[in-house]
Amino acid sequence: LGKIRSKSQLVNQDLKKFLNTKEGRMVAALVREFLIHFNLDYSLAVFDPETNIGEKYEGRDALARELNILESDDSSRLPLLAEVVKRMSSSGAKGRSL
Amino acid sequence: LGKIRSKSQLVNQDLKKFLNTKEGRMVAALVREFLIHFNLDYSLAVFDPETNIGEKYEGRDALARELNILESDDSSRLPLLAEVVKRMSSSGAKGRSL
Repeated sequence: LGKIRSKSQLVNQDLKKFLNTKEGRMVAALVREFLIHFNLDYSLAVFDPETNIGEKYEGRDALARELNILESDDSSRLPLLAEVVKRMSSSGAKGRSL
Repeated sequence: LGKIRSKSQLVNQDLKKFLNTKEGRMVAALVREFLIHFNLDYSLAVFDPETNIGEKYEGRDALARELNILESDDSSRLPLLAEVVKRMSSSGAKGRSL
């Protein structure tokens, strides 16, 4: 754990900067919610100290609100990222000409 | 590593099912690209065996194409998830009445 902390303090200025933006916090929270959703406990045990986002994470409900996602029975069975990607794909198909 | 593998085989039927969908693969790839982007090597070293997605990951360019993201100088400085969240926020503000 000590090794993880000292490495992340050295090289992760980029991540630190990113996590100081609203967008960055939402991204990291989406990743964390994905790990929690699928019980990826080992990944989470490393992810939290390596990113330091654990303490800023306010839970799925708060994150869904920030993303303007109204949860349905369907969406609540999957990580929020699934809903995000679903919307991204459908808006891509509708909104953009390629 | 052995412990991680055997645990993930036992409890992660949900994840396995999810990764067999196109959406699920895109979600996991976005998470992996985030970890790679910020050099979260320790997280990645656990994430890959715990999820088994490493071998299915085709890289950032392929993922951007799948998500209809045309990269700019700005977007390429951040993980793809940042672009996804950015679009999600702006389309949420425009497209939905709350």
